[in-house]
Amino acid sequence: MAPASLNARFKHSVTPDALRSYLAEFISTFFYVFAVIGSAMASRKLMPGADPSSLVAVAIANAFALSSVVYVAANISGGHVNPAVTFSLAVGGHISLPTALFYWISQMLASVMACLLLRVATVGQSLPTYMIAEEMTGFGATIIEGVLTFGLVYTIYAAGDPRRSLLGATGPLAIGLMAGANVLAAGPFSGGSMNPACAFGSAVIAGRFKNQAVYWVGPLIGGAVAGLLYDNVVFPIQVPDSIRGISDNTGL
Amino acid sequence: MAPASLNARFKHSVTPDALRSYLAEFISTFFYVFAVIGSAMASRKLMPGADPSSLVAVAIANAFALSSVVYVAANISGGHVNPAVTFSLAVGGHISLPTALFYWISQMLASVMACLLLRVATVGQSLPTYMIAEEMTGFGATIIEGVLTFGLVYTIYAAGDPRRSLLGATGPLAIGLMAGANVLAAGPFSGGSMNPACAFGSAVIAGRFKNQAVYWVGPLIGGAVAGLLYDNVVFPIQVPDSIRGISDNTGL
Amino acid sequence: MAPASLNARFKHSVTPDALRSYLAEFISTFFYVFAVIGSAMASRKLMPGADPSSLVAVAIANAFALSSVVYVAANISGGHVNPAVTFSLAVGGHISLPTALFYWISQMLASVMACLLLRVATVGQSLPTYMIAEEMTGFGATIIEGVLTFGLVYTIYAAGDPRRSLLGATGPLAIGLMAGANVLAAGPFSGGSMNPACAFGSAVIAGRFKNQAVYWVGPLIGGAVAGLLYDNVVFPIQVPDSIRGISDNTGL
Amino acid sequence: MAPASLNARFKHSVTPDALRSYLAEFISTFFYVFAVIGSAMASRKLMPGADPSSLVAVAIANAFALSSVVYVAANISGGHVNPAVTFSLAVGGHISLPTALFYWISQMLASVMACLLLRVATVGQSLPTYMIAEEMTGFGATIIEGVLTFGLVYTIYAAGDPRRSLLGATGPLAIGLMAGANVLAAGPFSGGSMNPACAFGSAVIAGRFKNQAVYWVGPLIGGAVAGLLYDNVVFPIQVPDSIRGISDNTGL
Repeated sequence: MAPASLNARFKHSVTPDALRSYLAEFISTFFYVFAVIGSAMASRKLMPGADPSSLVAVAIANAFALSSVVYVAANISGGHVNPAVTFSLAVGGHISLPTALFYWISQMLASVMACLLLRVATVGQSLPTYMIAEEMTGFGATIIEGVLTFGLVYTIYAAGDPRRSLLGATGPLAIGLMAGANVLAAGPFSGGSMNPACAFGSAVIAGRFKNQAVYWVGPLIGGAVAGLLYDNVVFPIQVPDSIRGISDNTGL
Repeated sequence: MAPASLNARFKHSVTPDALRSYLAEFISTFFYVFAVIGSAMASRKLMPGADPSSLVAVAIANAFALSSVVYVAANISGGHVNPAVTFSLAVGGHISLPTALFYWISQMLASVMACLLLRVATVGQSLPTYMIAEEMTGFGATIIEGVLTFGLVYTIYAAGDPRRSLLGATGPLAIGLMAGANVLAAGPFSGGSMNPACAFGSAVIAGRFKNQAVYWVGPLIGGAVAGLLYDNVVFPIQVPDSIRGISDNTGL
Repeated sequence: MAPASLNARFKHSVTPDALRSYLAEFISTFFYVFAVIGSAMASRKLMPGADPSSLVAVAIANAFALSSVVYVAANISGGHVNPAVTFSLAVGGHISLPTALFYWISQMLASVMACLLLRVATVGQSLPTYMIAEEMTGFGATIIEGVLTFGLVYTIYAAGDPRRSLLGATGPLAIGLMAGANVLAAGPFSGGSMNPACAFGSAVIAGRFKNQAVYWVGPLIGGAVAGLLYDNVVFPIQVPDSIRGISDNTGL
Repeated sequence: MAPASLNARFKHSVTPDALRSYLAEFISTFFYVFAVIGSAMASRKLMPGADPSSLVAVAIANAFALSSVVYVAANISGGHVNPAVTFSLAVGGHISLPTALFYWISQMLASVMACLLLRVATVGQSLPTYMIAEEMTGFGATIIEGVLTFGLVYTIYAAGDPRRSLLGATGPLAIGLMAGANVLAAGPFSGGSMNPACAFGSAVIAGRFKNQAVYWVGPLIGGAVAGLLYDNVVFPIQVPDSIRGISDNTGL
């Protein structure tokens, strides 16, 4: 990415192609949050108090929804669906800051609207927000969310790597499965969000912002570290010329 | 699609290739409805009263069955398996009206027969029909079903897009996973049908048509909007000449 | 397949490549039966009496195991793993009768050995056999098993079709998912076997042959009809010269 | 692999590419163990005492996690994530002994750290270790673990076979699904580990080494036999020149 004035970079962020990316992010994030928060509500409606089968329900909602929404947005916006992913790509220089900002706005707006729809349509059911286990500290939960997001973003970098050839066909699936596995491992401990937009949307509609910082600090740091590690250490690109990476398809 | 007399269009709809498409739709819709309605019956037989594990059973029956029946019909009829999908493709001009009508008939007939088989073979087990939660209004359920179907049809358009290249290999899977995620999110609220044929078949055999309109109005509108949005806004085809899209393989 | 004397055909069935096919069938069938019967035992050990979560356990054991064992044998034996599939391919002329016979022997032997291992290793746990629901007749169960196997074998024909191009990459997955969906729909009614070898092996080791005919008559007829329908009606091959189909890779 | 002095082979094992492989193994093994052990802890937190839905939770954690971590490491280290896999490839001559040793160290270290993180972050929750059912002998459990690992390693060899062409796209998925199926079949009997690193890490942090030998002897023998059988009997490579196999991408 050549150096450019802020003005020029902003112009790149409002082309028709870029606007379509934001719309694609909106739609994909909407359905992801809808499935994740909705599945927690649906399980709770069927049985108050969590049990292993409600953990399974939420975990496969994460896996199924993330796989499909990343799939549908892959060719349009890159399918971030997650401010931590966008942040990691901005830190790594794969997308410009103004574009990242518009991605964030799309993602946050989509999450709030998905939660609003769930709240309104289910008439009075209270909306679940991410919670950490009683015995855990906020610091411990931040570490766990950071590690979970590290795993997720690392998978996203691997899936988007053009050197994968045939394996590229199943990238969105691998991303979703990693998210599902992480929820199974840490859901009852730190909440297993890995996605600040998802935590933010449910907090806004439920009006409970307790521990909100956990779901921002952990994922943003974990995601950024994962991206830098993948790009620079684990599988660096040999020819510096083509250091474009994942989101070329945003037209930026 | 060039303008054509109704007669010519009808003739296009009864060629051997077209008839094979209707048969393929029949078989795929049959097994989809069989799995979705059957899994609800099977869960209920093992434990009266729903719990999160019966939600999981129905959701993965949706995901597994839709993935596989779309897969088997993909090269023959396009694998709609759902009147809302056919309607969306007709609205978008991808298939002609007479063909769409024959698709609908195949799908509806298959659904009725799958439910009939389940009813007869299980000897006296009552057939479940889609129901909306007590506290919800019919209007709210229609909105939810419309949103769910929007997500499903949007995924179908994305999966059928020839510009996907390698990702095309996992299209049917992404479609099934979106359906499964939607059931997990909304099953206990609006029923999570997203498919008028499935709702119609179980209603016919069970003889309960309460709220049937919910499962037609929502999905048809949601599906049509998804198709128009994908084709015209999110990922428009640049060269208007090749605006053929998804179902070219029906021979129309 | 040109007409040949029985002797010549038998010789084709004992080449090194053919023997490797039988071994591949043995290994794949072994692990399929091990997972299917084992998951029923494992669920029962954790909780006597079935509930929806044990239905989910058995259904995903079917889906996961069949996907992976078909995958590993695909390039070697074609990955039948099921006498009904082999029978269907023999009826359709895709493999010779002597070869089909050796496939059957491999499959049956593998199933008996998998069940024997489960019985011995778990020290005294009784082995589950397929059972039909109390209120169902044997005839009804046969119909259901036939329909289930029709769906499975139809998927196998579609997955093995060389005209699938890219979708061929996910064929084994589609086959496994169809099996899983069928178990979810019909498990508590007819047992959801779809596989005579699996039913035979568990019956031999458990010493209970009640209703064994259900698990042979239904699947064999259902599978044969599916193959004939796919080859001749749904998606016939246009050039009769290349009517080789699925199992060319057995070297026959 | 040409004969080489121990010194030269060691040098091959500390090139930058090789070091990256060890890092990739570390990250992938970390997230695999984290999901597998974490899901057992998460299920237990929600409900003390196992039931079929906790079996499902652990099985899909295995399937989802192994699929995704093998996927992300496939192009870098080959994605062993398991000392039994590394051992099998060393026995078959696919990787050199010094390299295998470094793989083992990475895997073991990653497992210990994943378990340590789970222990520390969940504040006082005791860590689950693999256990065999009361009525089983250690010898029986060793046999079962050996058979399970045979199935897993056999799938890994099949998935890594370059003659798979298109099916190569879904290799990591097939590997994960086989692991999940095996856990469903044998989890409550032998524990269903198939992975010495996973058993070792949890034993170290929990301080319980009872039956540890079961999880080393069984998997190492089962894995080695699977590799030798696949390479030499089931699907031997015809041209001995290119007997490179799976891990060429380690740069060795």
